[in-house]
Amino acid sequence: MAHAAWTLHPDRALPSDPTIRPLAREILDQTRGLPIVSMHGHVDAGLLARDEPFPDPATLLVVPDHYLVRMLVSQGVPHDALGVPRRDGVPVETDPREIWRTFASRWHLFRGTPTRYWMEHVLVEVLGVEEKPSAASADRVYDHLVDRLAQEAYRPRALFERFDIEILATTDAATSTLPDHAALAAEGWGERVVPTFRPDALLHVDRPTWRDDVVLLGEVTGSSIHGYRDLVAALEERRRVFVRAGARATDHGHVAADATPLSDSVAERIVADALRGSVRPEDAEAFAGHMLFEMARMSTEDGLVMQLHPGVLRDHDPGVLAARGPDVGYDIPLPTEYVRALRPVLETFGHHPNLRLVLFTVDEDTFSRELAPLAGVYPAVRLGAPWWFLDTPDGMRRYREAVTDTAGFYNTTGFVDDTRAFCSIPARHDLARRVDAGFLARLVAEHRLDLDEAVETAVDLAYRLPREAYAAPRTGNAFQNELESDRATSTVAKEHV
Amino acid sequence: MAHAAWTLHPDRALPSDPTIRPLAREILDQTRGLPIVSMHGHVDAGLLARDEPFPDPATLLVVPDHYLVRMLVSQGVPHDALGVPRRDGVPVETDPREIWRTFASRWHLFRGTPTRYWMEHVLVEVLGVEEKPSAASADRVYDHLVDRLAQEAYRPRALFERFDIEILATTDAATSTLPDHAALAAEGWGERVVPTFRPDALLHVDRPTWRDDVVLLGEVTGSSIHGYRDLVAALEERRRVFVRAGARATDHGHVAADATPLSDSVAERIVADALRGSVRPEDAEAFAGHMLFEMARMSTEDGLVMQLHPGVLRDHDPGVLAARGPDVGYDIPLPTEYVRALRPVLETFGHHPNLRLVLFTVDEDTFSRELAPLAGVYPAVRLGAPWWFLDTPDGMRRYREAVTDTAGFYNTTGFVDDTRAFCSIPARHDLARRVDAGFLARLVAEHRLDLDEAVETAVDLAYRLPREAYAAPRTGNAFQNELESDRATSTVAKEHV
Amino acid sequence: MAHAAWTLHPDRALPSDPTIRPLAREILDQTRGLPIVSMHGHVDAGLLARDEPFPDPATLLVVPDHYLVRMLVSQGVPHDALGVPRRDGVPVETDPREIWRTFASRWHLFRGTPTRYWMEHVLVEVLGVEEKPSAASADRVYDHLVDRLAQEAYRPRALFERFDIEILATTDAATSTLPDHAALAAEGWGERVVPTFRPDALLHVDRPTWRDDVVLLGEVTGSSIHGYRDLVAALEERRRVFVRAGARATDHGHVAADATPLSDSVAERIVADALRGSVRPEDAEAFAGHMLFEMARMSTEDGLVMQLHPGVLRDHDPGVLAARGPDVGYDIPLPTEYVRALRPVLETFGHHPNLRLVLFTVDEDTFSRELAPLAGVYPAVRLGAPWWFLDTPDGMRRYREAVTDTAGFYNTTGFVDDTRAFCSIPARHDLARRVDAGFLARLVAEHRLDLDEAVETAVDLAYRLPREAYAAPRTGNAFQNELESDRATSTVAKEHV
Repeated sequence: MAHAAWTLHPDRALPSDPTIRPLAREILDQTRGLPIVSMHGHVDAGLLARDEPFPDPATLLVVPDHYLVRMLVSQGVPHDALGVPRRDGVPVETDPREIWRTFASRWHLFRGTPTRYWMEHVLVEVLGVEEKPSAASADRVYDHLVDRLAQEAYRPRALFERFDIEILATTDAATSTLPDHAALAAEGWGERVVPTFRPDALLHVDRPTWRDDVVLLGEVTGSSIHGYRDLVAALEERRRVFVRAGARATDHGHVAADATPLSDSVAERIVADALRGSVRPEDAEAFAGHMLFEMARMSTEDGLVMQLHPGVLRDHDPGVLAARGPDVGYDIPLPTEYVRALRPVLETFGHHPNLRLVLFTVDEDTFSRELAPLAGVYPAVRLGAPWWFLDTPDGMRRYREAVTDTAGFYNTTGFVDDTRAFCSIPARHDLARRVDAGFLARLVAEHRLDLDEAVETAVDLAYRLPREAYAAPRTGNAFQNELESDRATSTVAKEHV
Repeated sequence: MAHAAWTLHPDRALPSDPTIRPLAREILDQTRGLPIVSMHGHVDAGLLARDEPFPDPATLLVVPDHYLVRMLVSQGVPHDALGVPRRDGVPVETDPREIWRTFASRWHLFRGTPTRYWMEHVLVEVLGVEEKPSAASADRVYDHLVDRLAQEAYRPRALFERFDIEILATTDAATSTLPDHAALAAEGWGERVVPTFRPDALLHVDRPTWRDDVVLLGEVTGSSIHGYRDLVAALEERRRVFVRAGARATDHGHVAADATPLSDSVAERIVADALRGSVRPEDAEAFAGHMLFEMARMSTEDGLVMQLHPGVLRDHDPGVLAARGPDVGYDIPLPTEYVRALRPVLETFGHHPNLRLVLFTVDEDTFSRELAPLAGVYPAVRLGAPWWFLDTPDGMRRYREAVTDTAGFYNTTGFVDDTRAFCSIPARHDLARRVDAGFLARLVAEHRLDLDEAVETAVDLAYRLPREAYAAPRTGNAFQNELESDRATSTVAKEHV
Repeated sequence: MAHAAWTLHPDRALPSDPTIRPLAREILDQTRGLPIVSMHGHVDAGLLARDEPFPDPATLLVVPDHYLVRMLVSQGVPHDALGVPRRDGVPVETDPREIWRTFASRWHLFRGTPTRYWMEHVLVEVLGVEEKPSAASADRVYDHLVDRLAQEAYRPRALFERFDIEILATTDAATSTLPDHAALAAEGWGERVVPTFRPDALLHVDRPTWRDDVVLLGEVTGSSIHGYRDLVAALEERRRVFVRAGARATDHGHVAADATPLSDSVAERIVADALRGSVRPEDAEAFAGHMLFEMARMSTEDGLVMQLHPGVLRDHDPGVLAARGPDVGYDIPLPTEYVRALRPVLETFGHHPNLRLVLFTVDEDTFSRELAPLAGVYPAVRLGAPWWFLDTPDGMRRYREAVTDTAGFYNTTGFVDDTRAFCSIPARHDLARRVDAGFLARLVAEHRLDLDEAVETAVDLAYRLPREAYAAPRTGNAFQNELESDRATSTVAKEHV
């Protein structure tokens, strides 16, 4: 490599204003070394259970990254050329080097995107790449990556240690028997990798797979599910299993935020229809809302934190869905309403000491209008981090600008990543800490906050708040300031600040 | 107090950019000393009529401040602990010192919020506090405040003079006989404290209190209200009383902006139903829209400025409403539509020389999409200041960035505070002047505006535009540039610029 | 003129941050001299075909500018005083000097607006004015303008050359026989001035003028239109004529973005109803959506780029429409939905190599929520520039901040002006280049982009992307990176970078 080695600038993603930047640096210095608390990820637990070497660079970094795939597709690269498998078995590109070249030669398409920021971090900081991706460098970088991925130090658990991940939550189907988590627990990793209960497939009675999933639910719970009551009992049982396996939270990806309860008899009737295979769409929608209410009710009993991220139309192109399956980049946000949708669940449980409802959105209009006002009054509600399309330098800044006025910092969960790509977890946290440092530094520069307050808040956002938000179950004494007591007793935090 | 005294930085809330800040300072210097024109407040006129010492610090600064209460509640502090009274008479915390401690020990929750900015101003600038609120300082600060509030110089009228309030508008039920305003007028304060006509309770025929309010309306107008025509006549009569008492404006807090007129016969039928106690919800909603249209029509006749701030779902938690009553922090914004909703009233009166319709919102999406385009063409429309949850450093900046392109500065009312807390009125105006100075300074720094224009505009936003927007009744000569003539003749303005 | 001559600051509209500004200057230096590609304008081709001197200053700069007229109207200036003609023939102001005075004396109303920025550019850079508009300078400036407009160098074609316009697209009714374009082509201007196919009038079967337009369509196509199939065939024929005349694109201004196809039999039935003069509003709406789908289908066949800009309620005040006609400032944006509305057309043609669908909006909420996610995955979709009310310094910055994360730069069209006022075309492009330079410079200052990448991207946004986005028909090889090949072969670009 002829050029000076590629390095990342220490001030990247900090505001350039000469009054703000030194303050931001000073704040960032205090969060840079904190462990990672990753409470909402989509990493496969099996990756850590097996702890095998990662396969080739394309399979690690390109094919499964829907941010990256969608950008290349939008510029005319066919899915086939990216190795995205087809359901009909027609062959697609299988040479990982070729896939890597296709990506590397289009590096310019990612200018200004978070994918670029994350990938730079992964390549330089995690994998030691020393030149930028391009058509010319593609093969050299590919060979470098192959070399690294073969080394012991680049196996999943070694990276987990190097990333200083304190705890990683995965996302798991409600019917999962969690074998990988069991294997990890047996090896002493049970506190570090915990499951998250995701029952979406069972709450949407109009999905084609629903009846199969109900059968599976019956099998794993050793019960027969003949109606609504059986379904609820089986879900409660699965939640207990998840709690025993260390789960802190549930995760709900409904189209709407609606959480309006139905009467038991109506719920019974809808489930009976669905079991017969003839449910009406409006009934299915109402039932999904009812079950969100039920999930909140169960959370007040078992203490699982409830995460809700509505407002996405999945698989916008049915042709692509049929050919490739879900999660290849065709999920598109929708306008989302929270105020009326969540009223039933909040008037019932919004002050319940055992409920913590974490709200996410991809409709940023709702930040200042709906989400901050709700989180700023109901003790059960916390705002999750900017999610998915908004998990970006400018998106995260706009989030803080939009919600802090009304919700403050302490009604947010601090940073929660949403990462499928294991190697990019540190990049996401690094970026969030930079953006929050920049935001806080601006408040200091505008004499709206003292520097010591800004530092303390930055540490809270990076570390203490995510820990506290997902601490389950809650104590029941809502009046006790949990964060304060956490601050006083946390030796980890003390060491780091 | 051991530390150096707590002071506020003179550059607070100004942009930190080293090119912009000196310009912002220079602009702010020209508005800093201007009197306060407070045309949309919620201060109780009785406070000034009685002019008694304020009670204890908690009753003055904590209990009635819904911004502050909602934040503490969201973090698990019960309403009881804040002394918010219960309707069922169950005792709540009554020791103001204890309530103050609860607040002061949670000072960190307000980081980054406008409540923090306002409270700092009130404590330091108005009340001479010299150390920051905290668990440790709570009692010392409390004692200091008790001492100050006992002094003559801290009585309401003395503060009114010290705040340099030129005119203060209160908000008063349409049925109010305005005894406090009469008392003030008798003491020569009639020009300084004026009422605002708020008929919401009478325009929503489905409110449980409506029939009682109609009876009261009959009593205060000496008439019997047997139907729609009587209702309209009584409202017109009440408006005349308010005009005679110095009112400049009406104030309307409907859920929707809809202002579609009904036929007289339909209106008669709905009122008849409502008087019998059996009105349909859709009729009640339509009638509220009809009455907004009627209010506009009346404004063209009596010249009262019409203020409309729709889009809030009041009392989101019915349990809290039942236990504590309204205005304890549970009002949540909704998406709001103005373009179709206001079309009937604007096609009828949008060019009428006697109508001034001031629009507010808590849905900031509407600023660039709907409100600026409407205000930028209809001579009757002005945009009010960012309201409620948006009355913040970042909210006010976003407002100027969103509306100035299409509405300019001169289709806005300039700063209009929305203050219930008397002592925070100067803080609100101070902050608005800072944010506007910063926005104008950026335009100068980007060579989009000359400094002399920026200074003139800042003075207009802080002083001349609010005066002009609420000058009633209008002259009828819309072509005459009222602001220009105001500029030429206003000695107050001359003195200050 | 006593004062120093009025000049525009070279750094205008660049960010003032001292780290960013020098970078922005450096980037701007590389785009400043690029030719103008103006692919979405509303200039009358006859202006260039006739190439006569412009009339007086008011008729050139004030009366037809709806941005300017609406602002003056909003501040109480009657349309009559601005010379906006009445349909009933009642006389309006006809003295252009008087109209100019009315405008010039209200120069302060435009502070902070894009109209101010554009007009300064036109007056100083294009027309050599040396003092700012005001009541005092009005007559002197007017005389100066009269003098300039009489000179050869200020005729339309001379200005076209001076503006360095490489290509200008006009907007033309589908029924236009394009005589001005033919005349221009005969004089060798056929490559430089091209028509755009705008069929709105024929796609909305409920417009009062629809049947007359259908008759006209029959005449110009030499066919008889007795039903839906005839209508489609005639539209296809007209598109062929436009393609032969050099058209690159179609242009669609529907209220909604809906593009849901109907069955042929339903379409036939609706057209039959409409030809009889009795179409139902819901049928007309459905048919407009159907025809958008048809337009996309036709684009896949003839390669015309399809431009869609929905979401405007035209002629909000029917009284003004009746008195003055359309386009006098009363078009108001509406909330707009794209995700479900465009699903049918995108699932059918979203990956078609011959479709390019350019989306515009005046509802900026949709940028990050809907438009960037759609453009960031469907190869057929590109985002147009911020349009109409958003074509401003802050609007264009917000656009880049909102869409770049998810769509990148290369799924946008680069700058596309939307100019009716011929003399302001350079001002629009100048401003866009400045705003993009400022945005890119911030990314460089935050170490999110290298300076050489920023320069290349700026040139792409100003010049290469608009050329590429409107290159018709597309090659059909979507996998080929057209822009890259364009970069390698474009001598124009090489000269300029």
